Amino acid sequence: MKKSAYEELEELCREVQLVTDAQALLSWDQEVLMPKNGLEYRGRQMAWFSGWLHEKMTNPQVGDWIEAAESEADRGEDAKANLREWRHGFERETKLPKRLVEELALAQVHAKAAWAEAREKSEFPVFAPLLENLVDLCREQAECWGYSETPYDGLLDKFERGSSTAALNRTLGALRESLVPIVEETTSREPFDRSVLEGRYAIEKQEAFNREVAESIGFDFDAGRIDTAVHPFCSGMGPGDTRLTTRYDENDFLSSLFGVLHEAGHGLYEQGLKVENRGLPIGNAVSLGIHESQSRLWENHVGRSRSFWEKWLPVAASYFPNLSGISVDTMFEAVNQANLSYIRVESDEVTYDLHVLLRFEIEKMIFSGELAIKDIPEAWNERFESYFGMPVDRDANGCLQDIHWSLGIFGYFPTYSLGNINAAHLAAAAKKDLPVKAAMDRGDYAPLLGWMREKIHQRGSVLLPNDLIREATGEDASPAALVTHLRERYLPV
Amino acid sequence: MKKSAYEELEELCREVQLVTDAQALLSWDQEVLMPKNGLEYRGRQMAWFSGWLHEKMTNPQVGDWIEAAESEADRGEDAKANLREWRHGFERETKLPKRLVEELALAQVHAKAAWAEAREKSEFPVFAPLLENLVDLCREQAECWGYSETPYDGLLDKFERGSSTAALNRTLGALRESLVPIVEETTSREPFDRSVLEGRYAIEKQEAFNREVAESIGFDFDAGRIDTAVHPFCSGMGPGDTRLTTRYDENDFLSSLFGVLHEAGHGLYEQGLKVENRGLPIGNAVSLGIHESQSRLWENHVGRSRSFWEKWLPVAASYFPNLSGISVDTMFEAVNQANLSYIRVESDEVTYDLHVLLRFEIEKMIFSGELAIKDIPEAWNERFESYFGMPVDRDANGCLQDIHWSLGIFGYFPTYSLGNINAAHLAAAAKKDLPVKAAMDRGDYAPLLGWMREKIHQRGSVLLPNDLIREATGEDASPAALVTHLRERYLPV
Repeated sequence: MKKSAYEELEELCREVQLVTDAQALLSWDQEVLMPKNGLEYRGRQMAWFSGWLHEKMTNPQVGDWIEAAESEADRGEDAKANLREWRHGFERETKLPKRLVEELALAQVHAKAAWAEAREKSEFPVFAPLLENLVDLCREQAECWGYSETPYDGLLDKFERGSSTAALNRTLGALRESLVPIVEETTSREPFDRSVLEGRYAIEKQEAFNREVAESIGFDFDAGRIDTAVHPFCSGMGPGDTRLTTRYDENDFLSSLFGVLHEAGHGLYEQGLKVENRGLPIGNAVSLGIHESQSRLWENHVGRSRSFWEKWLPVAASYFPNLSGISVDTMFEAVNQANLSYIRVESDEVTYDLHVLLRFEIEKMIFSGELAIKDIPEAWNERFESYFGMPVDRDANGCLQDIHWSLGIFGYFPTYSLGNINAAHLAAAAKKDLPVKAAMDRGDYAPLLGWMREKIHQRGSVLLPNDLIREATGEDASPAALVTHLRERYLPV
Repeated sequence: MKKSAYEELEELCREVQLVTDAQALLSWDQEVLMPKNGLEYRGRQMAWFSGWLHEKMTNPQVGDWIEAAESEADRGEDAKANLREWRHGFERETKLPKRLVEELALAQVHAKAAWAEAREKSEFPVFAPLLENLVDLCREQAECWGYSETPYDGLLDKFERGSSTAALNRTLGALRESLVPIVEETTSREPFDRSVLEGRYAIEKQEAFNREVAESIGFDFDAGRIDTAVHPFCSGMGPGDTRLTTRYDENDFLSSLFGVLHEAGHGLYEQGLKVENRGLPIGNAVSLGIHESQSRLWENHVGRSRSFWEKWLPVAASYFPNLSGISVDTMFEAVNQANLSYIRVESDEVTYDLHVLLRFEIEKMIFSGELAIKDIPEAWNERFESYFGMPVDRDANGCLQDIHWSLGIFGYFPTYSLGNINAAHLAAAAKKDLPVKAAMDRGDYAPLLGWMREKIHQRGSVLLPNDLIREATGEDASPAALVTHLRERYLPV
C-alpha cells in the first residue's frame, strides 16, 4: 500500500533522529572520554553527520511531502504540530548551504578544544581566532535565515521558538529592575560563615549520595547514567539513554549535588518524553527555556527548600559525619546565600540572572557589530564591574567561563533566565494543587514530578513554549512568580 | 578536474570508514557504558549503520569504478593492495541482501544482552533461541558467499583472508599433537602455592600500575584510554583514539595486568597503523591472526618473561607492599603455571590452545549440521572432559564463557591459535636481531616495538597475512616456534 506524504515524513524523521542521536553520542563522548588526539578525526565525523542530516532534510522531496501532507485530511493535534515543525525546520534548513553546515560542525569541535585550553590558561587570545570564525559562520547563518532587526534575532529562534531581541529586552529588563534591590539588600548582609561545612568529602561518597538523591526524585538509572565532565550537562541520546555529568570538589559536596539536581531536572524531562513519539518533532523537548525550567525547578525550588534538607540532611550526615552537628536551619541558610561572584554556574538564585543579562548584552553587541571579538574581555570586565561592583581577576573567571560560544551557540544564554522565570511560574502553579504542595512540604516530590510529567514532559513539542505554559498554568509566564519566590526566600518579613 | 576511478574509490572509502568508526563508538559504548534500557534503540541504530554501509559499498557505481581503476595505469604496491581489497570486499558484499545485513546487526545487539544474562545465570536456554537465529543468519551469509567444502569455510575468510577449514585442521592438528605431551607433563606437577600472592589489591592501584606498564611499552594515552568491561577487548575507532578494556579482581592484580598487556598489544598495532592511510584498506590491520600475534606477544613473550619481572616486580611492590618479600624467581613461576581450567581467557600459555581447539571443533559441527543448538552444552561438556580430564561444573564456565557467538562471530576462534603461532614465530625472528634481544633481556622493549612497527604495523593490509609473515621473518609461520618457546619456558632441561 502506498504511504501517504505524512507517513513518508514520519519515516524519514525517525531515521534522521536515529542518526542524530548517534551523533549526540559522539559529541557526549568528546566531552567526557575522548583522548585528545582523537579531536581532528572526531571533527570530521561531526561534520559528516551534520552534512548528511542537512542533505536528508533539504531534499526537495521533503518540501513536496510537506505540501502534500498539509492538504491531506486533518489527523488531529499531534499531526498538526508535527507538520508545523516540519514546515518550520524545512524552511530554515533549506536556507543554509551544506558547506556552512559542515563548516560549523567542524569549527565547533576545534573551538571547544581551544576554549578548554584558553580557559585553563586564562588566555583569551588562544580562543579568539576560533571564536571569530564561529561568530562569522553564525552571522552568515542569521543572514541566510533572515531577521527583523538584528542578526541576533535570527539566532534566538534556534533555542526558543517565537522569541525576539525586543521581547527579551522587555522581559529581562523588567526582571532586572525587580532584581536589583533584592541583590543589593541580600549581598550587603554579613556573609554566612562557611567554615561550619569545612571537611573532606570523598568523591565516591559524593557519587553515592548524589545517586541516592537523583534516584529518589525519579531519575531512572536503568535509562541513564551520571559521569564526570569539566562542564555539567545533560544529553538525551535516545529513549532509555539519558546522561548527566557533574564535577566534583573534595572540599564541597554541594557543588556536585546541585550539579546533579540541575542536570537530573533536564534528565527527568528527557526521560518523561513519550517514547512512541521519538523521532517526531512532538517527541522532542520544546525549547531551552522550558528545558531550563525543569532543571531550575529541581535545583532551586526543590533542592534549596527547607523540606528537602529536613529529609536529606540526616542522609548526607550518614555519608559525611562532619555534617552531623549541623542543623537544618544552618543548612538551609548555607544553600541560600546571595553573593557577588564571578561564575554563573556557581552563583546563587538571586544574582544568577545578572550573569545572564551580562552575557545577553555582550552577545547583542557582538552581533550588532558594536563589539569586535578582540575587545570582548575589556567590554566584559567593564560591564561586570558595573553590575557586580568588583573587578574581574582573570578571563577564566570572566568571558572565558562558559563553554557555549565554543559550541557556536549564540542566543542561548537568555533562555537561562527564561528558565528561571518559567520554573517559578510552574512551581507556583503546581503548588496550587494542594496535594502536590502538601507532599513537597514532607519532602515527597513524586506528585510534583507527576504534575510536570503530565503538563510539560508528555506534551513534548505539541504546543509552542508560550502556549504550553498557558495551557499548564492558565496564564502567561512573567517574572512575577520568580520575584515573589526570591522575596519570600531571601527577604522574609 | 575530473577524478580518476581510483580517486573516487579512495574518497568513498574514507567516508565509509569515518561512519564505520562512529558505529564502532556505539558498539564500544554498548559494552562499556550504555544503560540497559538503551538496548532496543541502540539495536536499531546499529542496524541503520550496517544497512547504510552496505548500500554505499554495493552501489553498482562502485563495481564500475573498481573495474575502471583496475585498467588505469599502475600506481604501485599500495594502490594494488587497495584494489585487491576493494574487489574482494565488493564481491562479497554484493552477494548479501541488505535485509540480511540489517537483521544481523540488530540480532547481535539483542543476542549480546541475552548472552550476558545467560552467562550470569548460567542458563544456556536464555541464550539458545538468539544463538539459533544468529547461526541461521550466518549460515545464510555463508550460502550467499559460497564455499568449497562447508559453510564454515565461507565464514573463516571474514577474519583471516585465505584460510580454510582444511588448512586449519592441518595446522591446529599439528599444534595439538605437539602440545598434548607438554600439557600432560606440566599439569601433572605439584601445583604452585598461590598463597604467597594473597592480598588485597585496590582497584585504583591496579589501574595506576597497569597504566604505568602500558605507557612504558609504548601505548599512547593521548591517543587512547583504558576502561572497565565484563569482557576485555580493544577497539580502534579512528586515528588518535584506541580504547582498551580490562576487568578487576581485588584479590588478584595479575588478572587485570595481563588483560591490559594483551589488549595494549592490540592497541599498539592500531596506534601503529599509518594515519594517512586511514579509510583505505591498506590502513587497516590485515587479519585477526596477525592482530592476535601482537596481543599475545606483549602478554606472553614480554609479560611472562623473567626480564619483565626483573624490571616490574619492584614497581609492583611499591604499589602493593605485600609483594615486597617475593623473589623474581617466585613471580616468574607464578605467572608461568600450566593448569587444567575452565576459562580460556584466564588459561595459561600451555593449555590455551586446547580451549581454542575445543571451540573450533564445536563450531565446525554446528555449521556442518551435525550439532543442534540445544545440544551444544552436552557436546561441549563431553569434549571438555575428554580434553581436560575433568567435568564442566556449569555452563557459565563452559559453552557460555565467551562473548563471540553473541556477536554473530563464528570462525573467529581459530585465529586465537594462529595468533599464538604467529606471535612465537615473530618473537623468534625479532630476537635474531641482536640489539632487539639484548634490549629485551634488560626489560627494554622499545626496539621490539620498533621492529613490529616497521615489519607489521606500518605494513597494514598491503600484504595478505601469509605474505606479511614471510616478508617479516623470511619463512612461513608454523607451530614450531610456539612449541619451542613452550618447551624452553615450561620444560627447561
